[in-house]
Amino acid sequence: MKNIAILGSTGSIGTSTLKVVDHLPEDLNVVALAAASNVDLLEQQARKYRPEIVALFDEGKAKDLQERLADTNIEILAGIEGVCAVAELPSAHFVVSAIVGIAGLLPTVRAIKARKTIGLANKEVMVAAGDIVTKLAKEYGVKIIPIDSEHNAVFQCLEGEKKKTIGRIILTASGGPFREYSTEQLEKISVEAALKHPTWNMGPKVTIDSSTLMNKGLEVIEAFWLFDVDIESIDVVMHPQSIIHSMVEFCDGSIIAQLNKPDMVNPIQHAMSYPNRLPTMLPPFDFTKYQALSFHVPDTKKFRCLDLAYNSIREGGSAPCYLNAANEIMVQRFLEGEISWMEIGEYLEALMCEHDKQSISTIEDVLEIDALARQLAKTFKSYQRVL
Amino acid sequence: MKNIAILGSTGSIGTSTLKVVDHLPEDLNVVALAAASNVDLLEQQARKYRPEIVALFDEGKAKDLQERLADTNIEILAGIEGVCAVAELPSAHFVVSAIVGIAGLLPTVRAIKARKTIGLANKEVMVAAGDIVTKLAKEYGVKIIPIDSEHNAVFQCLEGEKKKTIGRIILTASGGPFREYSTEQLEKISVEAALKHPTWNMGPKVTIDSSTLMNKGLEVIEAFWLFDVDIESIDVVMHPQSIIHSMVEFCDGSIIAQLNKPDMVNPIQHAMSYPNRLPTMLPPFDFTKYQALSFHVPDTKKFRCLDLAYNSIREGGSAPCYLNAANEIMVQRFLEGEISWMEIGEYLEALMCEHDKQSISTIEDVLEIDALARQLAKTFKSYQRVL
Repeated sequence: MKNIAILGSTGSIGTSTLKVVDHLPEDLNVVALAAASNVDLLEQQARKYRPEIVALFDEGKAKDLQERLADTNIEILAGIEGVCAVAELPSAHFVVSAIVGIAGLLPTVRAIKARKTIGLANKEVMVAAGDIVTKLAKEYGVKIIPIDSEHNAVFQCLEGEKKKTIGRIILTASGGPFREYSTEQLEKISVEAALKHPTWNMGPKVTIDSSTLMNKGLEVIEAFWLFDVDIESIDVVMHPQSIIHSMVEFCDGSIIAQLNKPDMVNPIQHAMSYPNRLPTMLPPFDFTKYQALSFHVPDTKKFRCLDLAYNSIREGGSAPCYLNAANEIMVQRFLEGEISWMEIGEYLEALMCEHDKQSISTIEDVLEIDALARQLAKTFKSYQRVL
Repeated sequence: MKNIAILGSTGSIGTSTLKVVDHLPEDLNVVALAAASNVDLLEQQARKYRPEIVALFDEGKAKDLQERLADTNIEILAGIEGVCAVAELPSAHFVVSAIVGIAGLLPTVRAIKARKTIGLANKEVMVAAGDIVTKLAKEYGVKIIPIDSEHNAVFQCLEGEKKKTIGRIILTASGGPFREYSTEQLEKISVEAALKHPTWNMGPKVTIDSSTLMNKGLEVIEAFWLFDVDIESIDVVMHPQSIIHSMVEFCDGSIIAQLNKPDMVNPIQHAMSYPNRLPTMLPPFDFTKYQALSFHVPDTKKFRCLDLAYNSIREGGSAPCYLNAANEIMVQRFLEGEISWMEIGEYLEALMCEHDKQSISTIEDVLEIDALARQLAKTFKSYQRVL
């Protein structure tokens, strides 16, 4: 029996994680849950799974939850320290890191220091602080198993293989809804159109990132830290059907790929079961339903965010953290109708040109750069179009 | 440095094996070569690679070779015992079993008994004598690494995985040139048309087997013995591009696939390098050249040989050996214009219905069944069409 703590239990990954727990009650046991502010759902989850502790980041709502759960013996905690207590709970073996955004960084670091195996669904942990987090994981002897479908696929493809034999990691990208748009069409993308993703059902931020290819760019950065390879050994191939979740090409020319129907329960269950594989709740893959898998190379001229991500790793230091935070603001500005879809990439490119790289060695450094980038990105206006 | 002995060095697999040796001179060293009768090519190979011994099955030609190589210190051997001496050579670590047909069985068994790692390219070894050969390999602690691209792919997909987590093995099949033919068109297939394979360049026997799906059927039987799974856990999926060489679906729903451009040097090099991976001589895979990979289920009504193979394993004992030998004769009869393409499957189905299963426990039993099947298949005539 593996004891599971979930950071971000009321979000999309959190609820999918609990579906996997429901499916494997003899293998997985929930001992701690943390959420940002969804008191109703967290109360339901607490009553159903009876963890030792639950935490709400929102302290006012935590008080509410305490009253609601007064009839149980569940301990209710509040604020960032409450969330970190979930990450560090002594009885937990495995911590699902699924708090969205930079808010997930500190609890994940605390879980690593408490020597928990990490199921990593939060991109920002690696994108903003990959250097710090991977060093810490090494120091504490902690295994980080990616839950993101692409990285989980790569992790599976690397099973039983030697790192020195990796030729390249090939991340697949659905390409989002605009992959065949002309520049003229890209100029006129509405918020509504951008929120429609062809294969995955995700939150608005990730859906927009998917349409700009920034999502793939962030995944390239994440892969760089997770798999410890040269940035030039990470390739992106467009694959609209999202069936092959990623691949590894080895030095001998063999490509190993991981595939199945896109459903987040697959990588979540894999990560929680690892190093075992446990029976799925989903039907076997039906090849008659996916008769053709197609591939093409990304158009990095139209979708400039991908190269920005590569360049941020080539630059190093604070650059990836800065890019990630600035992107979050630009996406928000797009969703609020303040800037166009094209301007997301254009503004980011301009911002990155202006950024003075700094070295990053502590979580505080990361949070400082993150805050600086957000501040600048919020006020960044009407920049001359970068060609 | 790995010392290699090649059984069947002048054939298609043998010459590709030597290409890999040429490419990896610091890792691979040829110590012994055996061939059936191609004295010219074997002489050239012997002069180039300077093995300790070479053997020709044809004793008259072996004498010729001895004279030709009199100026060298290479030992020349003849007949089946000469070929077996190549299989057993003390200095060899790895034996490539690439003699075509049932003639490869005895030398392979001798190599196993001499505790050589086997690179298995000969189908008949497993199809006709899988039970005996797998038991022997276990008894002698010998690893059998498949060189056939499909089984090599499965072998790679299983690396680092536990056998009990296999859901199903999915062998891919190009489907041959007639996969979209109507029954009327299948009735009229010429020998010339059947010899054109869309993706692989192989000998006539394998090309015809590929067109009837018997090749895939024999591979199903081979996979059954190599990977020790239930026959119902082996599936065949048509995949005309031959890029994905095979897959494994695990119990958790993940499918791991092995892919690259079809070229026999890939699996040969993999098998000889295993458990390492060494740099390929081929360029990286170019996704822009293979934009769509398609899949469909095989039509077992039109291509009845596939089910015959499944049924032979369900029946067990002598059935697979019998089927394999009878098929060899039927293909020969088709190539000689004696029977039609459709009759290959029809006659085999009728022959299998008539066959009284026998148990097989020795190589002699195998050879006896093989000879019996050939004899009956040669004279089998104008059977009422099986519907």
